[in-house]
Amino acid sequence: MHNHSAIKGKLYGVGIGPGESKLLTLKAKEVLNKVQTIFAPKGNEDGVSIAKTIIKETCSKKNNFIELIFPMTKDKNILKKFWQEAAAKVAQTIKKEKETAFVTIGDPLIYSTYIYLLKTLREIFPNIQTETIPGINSFSAAACRIQLPLLEANQKMAVLAVSKNLDSLEEAFKNFDTVVLMKVGSKLDKVIKLLRKINLIKNAVLISRAGQPDEKIVRDLSSLEDKKLGYLSVVIVKKNPRV
Amino acid sequence: MHNHSAIKGKLYGVGIGPGESKLLTLKAKEVLNKVQTIFAPKGNEDGVSIAKTIIKETCSKKNNFIELIFPMTKDKNILKKFWQEAAAKVAQTIKKEKETAFVTIGDPLIYSTYIYLLKTLREIFPNIQTETIPGINSFSAAACRIQLPLLEANQKMAVLAVSKNLDSLEEAFKNFDTVVLMKVGSKLDKVIKLLRKINLIKNAVLISRAGQPDEKIVRDLSSLEDKKLGYLSVVIVKKNPRV
Repeated sequence: MHNHSAIKGKLYGVGIGPGESKLLTLKAKEVLNKVQTIFAPKGNEDGVSIAKTIIKETCSKKNNFIELIFPMTKDKNILKKFWQEAAAKVAQTIKKEKETAFVTIGDPLIYSTYIYLLKTLREIFPNIQTETIPGINSFSAAACRIQLPLLEANQKMAVLAVSKNLDSLEEAFKNFDTVVLMKVGSKLDKVIKLLRKINLIKNAVLISRAGQPDEKIVRDLSSLEDKKLGYLSVVIVKKNPRV
Repeated sequence: MHNHSAIKGKLYGVGIGPGESKLLTLKAKEVLNKVQTIFAPKGNEDGVSIAKTIIKETCSKKNNFIELIFPMTKDKNILKKFWQEAAAKVAQTIKKEKETAFVTIGDPLIYSTYIYLLKTLREIFPNIQTETIPGINSFSAAACRIQLPLLEANQKMAVLAVSKNLDSLEEAFKNFDTVVLMKVGSKLDKVIKLLRKINLIKNAVLISRAGQPDEKIVRDLSSLEDKKLGYLSVVIVKKNPRV
């Protein structure tokens, strides 16, 4: 039986931005070059870790990578098992190397797997310190690509994952100047239908893989009906575009 | 009479993050070291440009700084005059140096003076290209300092400037899991009163100058009643803190 409290050290949760490796912060780069081992999340055993791909060119050659699997399932018990395994692996590395880093695309505290790792670590390994380093989030990067102000003067913005919030979308559009839709995925058709109904379809822009070679900017959302959307897409709806 | 259309070149609008100079992105640093002249905003003639202070250590010695005044007034005509003067100065530099940069704290498209410069430039100097580079915004930096997840699973977040939105605050608290309050300033007392009324005072944290030597984290907002707040403060209210 291990004594979990005996493991001391530090985990850096590092936001690495939306996908363009130059959007890493100086601090993120410094941390990634300081630690020996870097943990990166991926969706399944055979998959590729997007985060790992992004930072490969920024990291020093000596870095050792460990991929952690966070499957896309809604089964809490299965997820918990994976989080606990991930936390145990991180703790083992900290035991040997004193500190390590976990990288996450975008910002670590916005819809990120890091949040679960952080919680599980706190529960099981209370003496491991954590430091979280912010990253450029996907909607800021997307807004910059189309140079659309997210918030001007005294405007209000709502940010939400579409998947479970379809019912509250209409109210958000009514009350907010800017609405950022994340995790649109299979719900895009329903979003398009709603935007048409409330006459905001022309105010919506979809940005996928902002700033990357395969970036997509779609101003006519209707053209996307029945199409599949990439995981890294964001839809920005601005009611009164002033610029 | 100048021919404004004849001026061609490029302005980089560079987000430099919340105040910690290591939170600049690699891209921001690259741009700032590439251009000769850097424009930085300040509130009045005698004031200090916070943005300039932040980047001084990141920039190469050869950079030339020009401070632009954006006064804190609500008079649209006065403001317009300052924006036009700023745009003209930027254009003159671009005429000589082909490209230049304007730096802004936080993210350039979230409550930033850059937005006005961008608009004025587009109006008066249509042939000047612009590229906007995202920055770490204040609420992401603040959330990281207290390691409070802003958005988990399918949660919803509202971001708003308190100053003109006091009336819609209660609804935002009702409908959103996370509410980020910016530009709280002199309205803090009213915010505290409302948070007490709706029983969320214990869910609020004020973070001022995140990550800087004089950072302040206040979890008991009542202690701030009748106190003045720094310009760079943000209040995060999370209804159901899961971590």
